[in-house]
Amino acid sequence: MKHVKYGKCVKCGRTYSAVPDLTTCACGGILDIVYDYEYVRAHLTKEKLAARPERSMWRYRELLPVADSTEPTPLRVGWSPLYEEPRLAEILGLKRLWVKDDGQNPTASLKDRASAMAVAKAREAGASVIACSSTGNAASSLAGNAAAAGLSTYIFVPSRAPKGKVAQLMTFGATVISVQGSYEETFELSKQAIDRWGWYNRNAAINPYLSEGKKTVALEIMEQLDWQTPDYIAISVGDGCTIAGLWKGLKDLYAIGFIDRLPRLISAQAAGCCPLNRSIETGEDWRPMEENTLADSIAVGVPRNADKALMAIRESDGLVVNVSDEEIMAAQKLLGRTCGVFGEPAGVTGAAGVKKLCEAGVIGEDNTVVSVVTGNGLKDVANAIKSCGEPISIPSDMDRLLAAFAERRITVD
Amino acid sequence: MKHVKYGKCVKCGRTYSAVPDLTTCACGGILDIVYDYEYVRAHLTKEKLAARPERSMWRYRELLPVADSTEPTPLRVGWSPLYEEPRLAEILGLKRLWVKDDGQNPTASLKDRASAMAVAKAREAGASVIACSSTGNAASSLAGNAAAAGLSTYIFVPSRAPKGKVAQLMTFGATVISVQGSYEETFELSKQAIDRWGWYNRNAAINPYLSEGKKTVALEIMEQLDWQTPDYIAISVGDGCTIAGLWKGLKDLYAIGFIDRLPRLISAQAAGCCPLNRSIETGEDWRPMEENTLADSIAVGVPRNADKALMAIRESDGLVVNVSDEEIMAAQKLLGRTCGVFGEPAGVTGAAGVKKLCEAGVIGEDNTVVSVVTGNGLKDVANAIKSCGEPISIPSDMDRLLAAFAERRITVD
Repeated sequence: MKHVKYGKCVKCGRTYSAVPDLTTCACGGILDIVYDYEYVRAHLTKEKLAARPERSMWRYRELLPVADSTEPTPLRVGWSPLYEEPRLAEILGLKRLWVKDDGQNPTASLKDRASAMAVAKAREAGASVIACSSTGNAASSLAGNAAAAGLSTYIFVPSRAPKGKVAQLMTFGATVISVQGSYEETFELSKQAIDRWGWYNRNAAINPYLSEGKKTVALEIMEQLDWQTPDYIAISVGDGCTIAGLWKGLKDLYAIGFIDRLPRLISAQAAGCCPLNRSIETGEDWRPMEENTLADSIAVGVPRNADKALMAIRESDGLVVNVSDEEIMAAQKLLGRTCGVFGEPAGVTGAAGVKKLCEAGVIGEDNTVVSVVTGNGLKDVANAIKSCGEPISIPSDMDRLLAAFAERRITVD
Repeated sequence: MKHVKYGKCVKCGRTYSAVPDLTTCACGGILDIVYDYEYVRAHLTKEKLAARPERSMWRYRELLPVADSTEPTPLRVGWSPLYEEPRLAEILGLKRLWVKDDGQNPTASLKDRASAMAVAKAREAGASVIACSSTGNAASSLAGNAAAAGLSTYIFVPSRAPKGKVAQLMTFGATVISVQGSYEETFELSKQAIDRWGWYNRNAAINPYLSEGKKTVALEIMEQLDWQTPDYIAISVGDGCTIAGLWKGLKDLYAIGFIDRLPRLISAQAAGCCPLNRSIETGEDWRPMEENTLADSIAVGVPRNADKALMAIRESDGLVVNVSDEEIMAAQKLLGRTCGVFGEPAGVTGAAGVKKLCEAGVIGEDNTVVSVVTGNGLKDVANAIKSCGEPISIPSDMDRLLAAFAERRITVD
């Protein structure tokens, strides 16, 4: 990989050759993949990119840590739609607003970007088995992307994972271990098992390539905005890997001169589980929290990628915002009704944060904002139904329909 | 619309001006939109198409019944991935096999193609309310596409519609009427309500433009295959509108010289509800059937578009195949495990049909086949879980993991 220099520890600065099965630093720190930006600049131009027919994350090969000979993974991951939402912008009082719907991915979440990368690197490493622990989306995306590539998977999820995600896993043929405990306990068991059997490791806080997959969401947003930087990009935060990946992509583009300024990040966490945002707010080290939110994908009391995430928020002069479960579910409905985008609770937490910051007057009519929806609402139907209520239920009878409309004060024009 | 001649009744041949709110013929027959193929030939070439950056169903404007001034609808509908599946082809004993994953659409089903068309035509008609009856997918796709366009919706679903679809509807802000009865009874109530209040009608068997949206799946398949016609295209069949749309798209391409031969269609229905296939098999008129299958989207005992569907199957010299619920759920697992594609039961019924025809030796190693997956498995998680079973459930403890593996005879290399 001529364009990749090495993996560098974000804690102690030690560097490691970028072998396919790279994990963490000897000091325990997480590695960051460092590119030769001069090489990338020489080989990638905006014009070259614009002419490329590939509409997937593999469109950005010069900025991805894979060998020239590595083939794109089978499922079509990435190039999700970026919708401008003038009506929602008006409701919130923003200058301009875009929604990046990353629920439009093969297994319906942003995690497909990391899992496709894991599959690509596992193939480079000659591995036939991949394993991970996950709150659910990383799991189902790994299972799907691996199945399509003919690799097998061992997957550890906390028992609270929603049925939609478990159904995907089982259908994709993964061996699924549902751990009766927190995400932290799930992660620990997966770590022991991976150490024991030597499976290829897809835990995003251990395998430094996975953030590089996730960063493609930033590359796409900026290309879809024709390289015009918005003021803010909002995203939900759990383990910390996704916001770190987002930031990495933006810094890459800045480093190669594709964008001339960086946006500020908005880190949205659930009020019931916000160890990273609390650390930013208090200026103290992060400490574990209970996992007390229905937004299961970001219910991470012990974030495994705290260092990179906190660095990303601070470097970007970012904002942090914590939202209640009620605010999350209200954002789900708002996005559904005004944008036709159905996000899972964690998926719309970024949008809930944007709404809250608008209401607080922190951001407003001078600002342009991109809000990333990280997962599809179909992943967690139970909470959506609880939030939206039940439909009108009647027999096939016009009088009953009229009565039902009258009862609910529905006036038909 | 210079490229559109008129709507023509498939029963009596009477023609109607192609106004935006066109419905059925005075004789009760369904209309077919007729194009001026000479005009289309003069305005659309393969090269022109290949150079077009638009990656959505609106890419094919010259073959779509919309005015030049009509804007594409907001959600990104269409251009779903077509995956070649060599491993599955080998398992089934086919020469080549492709899976068109139309679950990769904004609301996760092929029906988005028809709903986007309904929204476009409703706008042309100046309507602000759209209504339909649906087994679920047409409903959620209409609700989503309409919400994104700022239109409101009244939607009638049978009470058996899976929770995932109802959750989408409610989140998209539709007024949902869950009818305690069959799809037929649901359709009847919607018809009465639409007649009473004059809503724009998105019932695909009444509004002739909707098949024209659905046909884009065929246009894409052929473009993605570089205009090389496969021997067969397999798809699940309920109301009949989708297979009719598929066939229309293929005939369009043949008429304008983009393909030099037509494929044969494979009409797959559930054995518990196969009135159209039964009509082909027996040579008799179709008769209503019970709606006895878990593949809810195609559980249509009284198909509303029987005429067009039967014509499509016959004209293409098509095959019909009926599959049991067990065969459907086996196909769901097979696609998940070998392709990483998770389809809902009705969505994988086409693939179940292909498998059955291969096993029966009707098709085989000389044949190339495209199988369309019409909806995402996340729409109906309950049946997937029933079919796949539950994961291994243990506390975070290595000894318990080893015991669980031993018990299930899982050998880890």
